[in-house]
Order: sequence, then structure tokens, then C-alpha cells
Amino acid sequence: MALIVQKYGGTSVGTVERIQNVAQRVKKQRDAGNDVVVVVSAMSGETNRLIALANEISMAPNAREMDVLVTTGEQVTIALLSLALQEIGCDARSYTGGQVRIQTDNAHGKARITDIDHTRVCADLKAGRVVVVAGFQGVDERGDITTLGRGGSDTTAVAMAAALDADECQIFTDVDGVYTTDPRIEPKARKLDRITFEEMLEMASLGSKVLQIRSVEFAGKYNVPLRVLSSFEEGGEGTLITLEEEGVEAAKISGIAFNRDEAKLTIRGVPDEPGVAYKILGPVGDANVEVDMIVQNIAQDGTTDFTFTVNRTEFDKGKDILEATAKALGAREVVGDEKIVKLSLVGVGMRSHAGIASKMFECLSKEGINIQMISTSEIKISVVVDEKYLELGVRALHEAFELDKE
Amino acid sequence: MALIVQKYGGTSVGTVERIQNVAQRVKKQRDAGNDVVVVVSAMSGETNRLIALANEISMAPNAREMDVLVTTGEQVTIALLSLALQEIGCDARSYTGGQVRIQTDNAHGKARITDIDHTRVCADLKAGRVVVVAGFQGVDERGDITTLGRGGSDTTAVAMAAALDADECQIFTDVDGVYTTDPRIEPKARKLDRITFEEMLEMASLGSKVLQIRSVEFAGKYNVPLRVLSSFEEGGEGTLITLEEEGVEAAKISGIAFNRDEAKLTIRGVPDEPGVAYKILGPVGDANVEVDMIVQNIAQDGTTDFTFTVNRTEFDKGKDILEATAKALGAREVVGDEKIVKLSLVGVGMRSHAGIASKMFECLSKEGINIQMISTSEIKISVVVDEKYLELGVRALHEAFELDKE
Repeated sequence: MALIVQKYGGTSVGTVERIQNVAQRVKKQRDAGNDVVVVVSAMSGETNRLIALANEISMAPNAREMDVLVTTGEQVTIALLSLALQEIGCDARSYTGGQVRIQTDNAHGKARITDIDHTRVCADLKAGRVVVVAGFQGVDERGDITTLGRGGSDTTAVAMAAALDADECQIFTDVDGVYTTDPRIEPKARKLDRITFEEMLEMASLGSKVLQIRSVEFAGKYNVPLRVLSSFEEGGEGTLITLEEEGVEAAKISGIAFNRDEAKLTIRGVPDEPGVAYKILGPVGDANVEVDMIVQNIAQDGTTDFTFTVNRTEFDKGKDILEATAKALGAREVVGDEKIVKLSLVGVGMRSHAGIASKMFECLSKEGINIQMISTSEIKISVVVDEKYLELGVRALHEAFELDKE
Repeated sequence: MALIVQKYGGTSVGTVERIQNVAQRVKKQRDAGNDVVVVVSAMSGETNRLIALANEISMAPNAREMDVLVTTGEQVTIALLSLALQEIGCDARSYTGGQVRIQTDNAHGKARITDIDHTRVCADLKAGRVVVVAGFQGVDERGDITTLGRGGSDTTAVAMAAALDADECQIFTDVDGVYTTDPRIEPKARKLDRITFEEMLEMASLGSKVLQIRSVEFAGKYNVPLRVLSSFEEGGEGTLITLEEEGVEAAKISGIAFNRDEAKLTIRGVPDEPGVAYKILGPVGDANVEVDMIVQNIAQDGTTDFTFTVNRTEFDKGKDILEATAKALGAREVVGDEKIVKLSLVGVGMRSHAGIASKMFECLSKEGINIQMISTSEIKISVVVDEKYLELGVRALHEAFELDKE
């Protein structure tokens, strides 16, 4: 007998019929002898409908009142799912975030969970009930309703699993697991049975949008085994996200992620002196432009070239700032490139296996793909290349590292 | 500077535009220097939409979960109205029933308010904010969400006014006040400037559906001055419902109410013996059939005739029960009549003015209207007549008692 926390997103509970399907799934877990806590989102479309109502009134609505408004979405779902469970003979009880007591700070719209009181939930589980919890929401110290931000239901599920010391937290989505790369680009992409939290974090931050990145961080921090499953196909095992297991040699590489949302900015011929990086990036940060990769090279003439990537939507803003900086610093020129893509190899195996980077570069070189930037972390190697090489690069790397094989 | 509690029903907040109109009204009170607490219902249609969703899942949905579901309706309105107030420069803050803390018993769907904690509301008023409270809802001791039953928003408003010792509780509806009788039947019907709680109770219970009867009881009990106003016409004074004022001679009669939802059942020739009334009405009550008027006459042959009225929708059920009782008691026969109407004169002046009843009977007799049953209370005389006499009876009484004159 295990304690399972399941999370179903808006699409999975988008209609009454789908809510009834979820109830059947939950019942199967109960029938198998497990305790179940279910975390649900608002029915798909509902949150947007509520936001549209508010925007008819105000284009800059108060954050506290927006949280009061949008949290009704999940409240509707918890009631309907509880009714659907009761209807098939499965005793159930619903809880809003405030009723569980999911305590958060008071940052409306992007609150962070500070504490969970699981007294009532535990009592219900003990009494044989399924507990249905509204995702995405909590209350601050004053009892004001807060929300955790878009995708916050994943975080609610992981936090509930951590608080209850659950055996597994299952996230039901519209994909059946985490893949070695995007199957739309490489048809040989293989579903992974397991992946570590760190790898998942790298994959998620690189655009594999299976899970909310904060929920993966949370799961890693509290060591909650997390499983990604399809809510539409039954019987699959999905992908289990866990701590790296000792004694088992991890695969060298888990997958290939990519990100086509970035653009590159370079400032050339900056007089090299202490503090130059700060002088360049300070104004960028002040303007709330997020920077991803950063590369600096010192030329022989005592000047330096400095390159970084930003989100493509902020390319123009970043370029304007950089041109002002170039003037102030007496740099030679500013150049930019929007037609780039970032390819990344991710895998904890890199830690103990030398030669991964050189094999990656060799593979790309054989295909005639020029590498513009390189950045590495302990479990990831990222390169920036011309965006026209995206598909070719992904497939070449997938084959070179034999990711289609177990 | 006064403290005003205003209540707007579902029609008054049925669209974003109407919510914006309500915000303008509230702002006028603020601009006049008054503190304002606003109680709102769900946008019209919303509660029914939610109930329909639940009924797709279950025809006998759990009452606790239904309360979780339907209370989202008012929660949406309080957020939208607060946003609309803020948008026109009127600082505002929303509260769900649970957040105020409107404490109730745990009778889901028909809970009664047991206590109100007004600490936070008072602090907001002091800080110059308009407080927007979700009507119809509260929480029980465990923190479970409860509802007060249909029309419960009126009760919330009166209870808030009582708890805050407000100067006036204003109920905005689709009529501009309480009339001497239904203007659709008697065009000369006159809007009353004032009416006592007791009279309003009698008018309300007799089918003048301006206010929820429980809210009037509540207002009378805590002596909260209650005003009925139109939410669509501005500038009117509506009708003020207050305690009877000493020193002022109350009008003899305030109005004429009627009820066409009743039907009459008679059991004839019941052997008269102690306990016969209980033997007849006991089974009726056991079957949850509500009885209104009751009349008993003893015949000279030692038997009794016993007549009572029930809601017309329960006529058949009542008749079946009565026929079984007639058999058991050895009564002669059971007869029923669905085509009746109840006419009532209401007025606290009856207490001190003799001859009202005889004047009423004389008036009806002059018009050839046969009286089938009579029932009296301290401030009301009701008669049952054939339903074809409804309009004639109302107009004759309205004229006889000169209700069109101040």
C-alpha cells in the first residue's frame, strides 16, 4: 500500500466527461489498495475566460483581486471531481489551497509555498477518502488567496507529495514521458524510463516543456520521485524522475535539447580593463533583459569581444542598450544575430566520462556545422549554431551518441 | 458620515457593464462621505450553469461539494467589482464568506449564520476602503464552505449590517420599493415609504417576493433599518423597513398580499375526539408537505370537518395521504380544490383599530365574493376565495381601505 499524489492539468479535466475519466483512473489506484491525493487545475479555457472578464474592467488589474478571481477555476474542478468520484462509489473530499492550508508568501500571482499543514488531509486519507486538492493556489499569513503562477499546479502536487512523504508524485500530461529529443525532429527519439532531477532541469530549461521547472527543483530538493505520464493513454509507465542511483552506471547522455527562442548579441573591440563584463551586462540586467549564455575572448590588441544570448523577443531592446554601452566604452561595434539555435547534450554521465565534448564537436564538424558559441556545465554542453542546422544537428548528435538504443 | 451596507443581486451584477454601474453607485456613497460594505450575488445565470455541470455528473450531488462549487459564483463577482471600484479610483478589497469569517452551522445548502468576525472588515473601512463581501456563503467550524440557500445574499447583507452596527442596509432589486399591492393587478397600487418588519414579513410570506423572508426576520431581530431600492433607476428613496415608531399612529393597513400557489384539502365527517388534528396533520408533516392555513369546525352530529391549505404542487401527494387517513379514522370523505387564492390584508394598525375584519368581509360580500376560509393574526387577515375573484378582490379591498391615498 503506497501513497500516490496525482496531478491532472487543464486539458485532462477540460470537460465533464474527462473529469469522469480521471475519476476512473483514481479509482483504479484506490482499488489497488493505494491512498490517493489528486491535484487538479482549472478546466482548460476557464482561467483565460476569467482573465478576459477582468481585462474588460482593467488592463492592469490588482494582483490580489486577480488571485481571488482565477482561483475559482480550480475550485470548480475539485468539486466536480469529488462528485464524480463519489458517483462511482469512491469516497472523496475536496480542498481549496486555503483549506488544506497551503501557506505561501504574499507575492500575488507568483507566490512561493512556505508551509503545508496536512492535518485534515491525513485524517481523510486515514478514513479511506480520496483527497482532491486545488492546484496553483494557497493563502498568505493574513488568509488572502494567492496563486503560484502559471503551471503552479505541478508545484502544488510536488509540495503535497513532499509534505505527505508520498511514495510517488505522478504528473499526467498530454505526452507519455520524457524523450531523448523532440520526436517531431528525430523520429527515432526514444522515451526514457528514467532521468535524474538535474538532467530534467536542464532539459526543461532548454525548452522541453513537459514539466514546470520549479516543480522539478522542488521535487529534487525534497527527493520526491516524480513520474510523467500520459492522461490520455492508459497502461504506460511514463518517465520516472529520481535521484541519481549509486552503483548503477548512468547513461552517458540522456538527451538532446534545443532552444530556438534565443538571439545573439556581440560587442567588439572593447578596451579590456577590470570590470568590463559588469559595465556591459549591468545596463542589460537593469532593463530586465534576461541573459543566457555568455562568452568572452581577449584579442591580442588588448581589446575584448563579448558575446551573450537573450530571448529573441528582447533582441531589439538588448541591441539598443548595447549600442549605448559601446559608445560609452569606446568599443568598435555591436553586431547581432537572430537566426541562431542552441543545441545541448544533457547527461549526468558526462561527469565520469571524458571525451563527450570532443565527440560532440567532431560530430557537428563532420556535418559541416559551424559552432558559434560554446558553454558547458557539469551535466550539459551547449553550442550555438545557425538555426538552419537545427534538424541536422539534432539528428546527427542523436545518432552519434546512439540515443535510439537502450 | 454613516456606515451603509449595500446588497446587489445577480441581475444587478449580470454583466461587466452592470458591475461597472454598481461601482459608480458605490463610489457616490463614498464621495458623500459614507463608509460602504457591498454584498454581491453571483452573476445571473452563473449559479445555474454550475448546478447544471454538477448534474451532468450526479443527480443527487453531495451537499458539501455543491457548496464548494456554487460559491465560486460570488467569488468571481467580488473580484470583478473590487477591480471595477479600483479602476475608478475607489480603494476596495474583496472577501469571501470564509475570509470575513462568516461562521455558520454545517447544514450545507441551508446553513444559518452563527457568528461574524468583523475585525478585518473594520480595519479596511477605517483605512478608507470599500469592502466587497461574497453573499450567500460562509464557513462552518471546520472551515468547510457552506451556503445559506437561495436568496441568502440578502441574509448576508443584513447579518453584516447587524455585526457592524450599520446605519442602513440597502437591498437593490429589480423593483423600486414595496407596494400596497401588485401594480400589475391594481394600477393604483402605491409605493410605501415605510413599512414595519412585521408587515414586511407578512407581505413577503404571502408572495410579495421582494425580499428573502429570513433576511427580514434577521433585520427585525437586530433592528437593522432595511431599505429596498431599484438597482436600475437612480434617485428613488425606495421603501424603508423599520421598527414601528412610537407616537406615530401607524396606517391602518399597509397593503394587500395574495398567494395563488395554494390548494385546499378538506376531510369531512371525522369522529371528533382528542388528538384528531394531530392524527390528520401528523402524516402530512411526516411526508414533508407544508401546511399553511388550518380551519376546523365541529358539526352538531359529533363529527368534525377539517380543512387546510398546501402548496399547489403538493396537492396530489397531500390528497393521497389524507385519503389514507380518512380510511383509518372512519371519516366520511375527502374533498379538494386547487382553484383557490389567498387574499390578505396586512397592517400593524389592526392592533389598535377594531372593525377591520368586518369591513373586509363586507367589502368582499358586496362584490359577491364567497369566503371559503378565514385565518387571522395580530397584523393580518387572510381569506381563501375562488381564484377567479383574485383581481376583483384585490381591487375592491384596495379601494375600500383607500390604499391609493397617503
